[in-house]
Amino acid sequence: MTEVATARRSRITPEREAELYEAVLDLLREVGYDALTMDAVAARTKSSKATLYRQWGGKAELVARAVRHNKPGGFADIDTGSLRGDLHALTLNSDDCQMEQSSALMRGLAMAVHGNPELLAAFKEHLIEPEMAEFHRVLQRAIDRGEVRADNPAIDFVMHMMIGGFAARSLIDEQPPTQAFLLKYIDAVVLPALGAATTR
Amino acid sequence: MTEVATARRSRITPEREAELYEAVLDLLREVGYDALTMDAVAARTKSSKATLYRQWGGKAELVARAVRHNKPGGFADIDTGSLRGDLHALTLNSDDCQMEQSSALMRGLAMAVHGNPELLAAFKEHLIEPEMAEFHRVLQRAIDRGEVRADNPAIDFVMHMMIGGFAARSLIDEQPPTQAFLLKYIDAVVLPALGAATTR
Repeated sequence: MTEVATARRSRITPEREAELYEAVLDLLREVGYDALTMDAVAARTKSSKATLYRQWGGKAELVARAVRHNKPGGFADIDTGSLRGDLHALTLNSDDCQMEQSSALMRGLAMAVHGNPELLAAFKEHLIEPEMAEFHRVLQRAIDRGEVRADNPAIDFVMHMMIGGFAARSLIDEQPPTQAFLLKYIDAVVLPALGAATTR
Repeated sequence: MTEVATARRSRITPEREAELYEAVLDLLREVGYDALTMDAVAARTKSSKATLYRQWGGKAELVARAVRHNKPGGFADIDTGSLRGDLHALTLNSDDCQMEQSSALMRGLAMAVHGNPELLAAFKEHLIEPEMAEFHRVLQRAIDRGEVRADNPAIDFVMHMMIGGFAARSLIDEQPPTQAFLLKYIDAVVLPALGAATTR
């Protein structure tokens, strides 16, 4: 998939691609997914609709890739030697302002995803699955180090726990998730459920 | 609050109240919160708008109370003698069909809550706070029995964990939460994070 996607997108520079994703996210924040049109994206970015469709196939994939592009860091370069270190480093990748923006964006998109199978499929491909794969690599290293037992049933629910901390924070506490909150949540919930060390 | 509310509502029978809440939930499912009007509720239930406003004050409180009314069971009569027993019994209070309906309803309302401080306030008063109070009573009994340490930091996050299991299930697994899933999640995540027994 990655090679094909790169080939398809080979005619625009990374700078231009980033600029385009920024414009898509701005439009998303302004009007929401349902009201977002490829016409508006074309106008805002001074591209032709034909180019947008050729490069991205459609609105759902364009939006999913824009959101993915906007996610800071990720696990790619993280390998601290402990599960706690890795999860903390991941949290510290986004500052509180980025987390608040991303939380508002995801809230809007979570609604659009239901009732839109195409958007859900694009989200799974470009956001959920890559993120789950990254979590699994981090967890596999923890298993290999002997920090987490390979048969611990919580391994399947790491994404559920993290999404819970992230989403319930705004509902229950009426605050966007912050680094401080998420670090506390990881230590209080995620690591103990996995039977991993909560200090170090 | 409860006494005042009961007094305010004293002129309608519990049957009539239940009928009214059902109609509100039907309308919610049909048109969503934003498009729901007190006129439509009055027409559907053959009540006067004046009555609705006198009894409930407004749309936000009427909707929050209707959702609360619809939640089956709750913790009220649950006291099985173990934390695992209590949490399992709570889950078994709703069958899979009720959970699917309630999950769809909450998804729609979660969007409306943001950008609507009045609805958020009504939700906190009639749904989130009573539910948190019930969780705290269940947890307090577990602490009193010596099942959970009083200073376990996961105690503050029980609602976050549960909401995570409930909400992420539909996003990641594209399925409504089921009893079987939630029982597994409680055993794999919630009880271990609290340091409580996962069998018995």
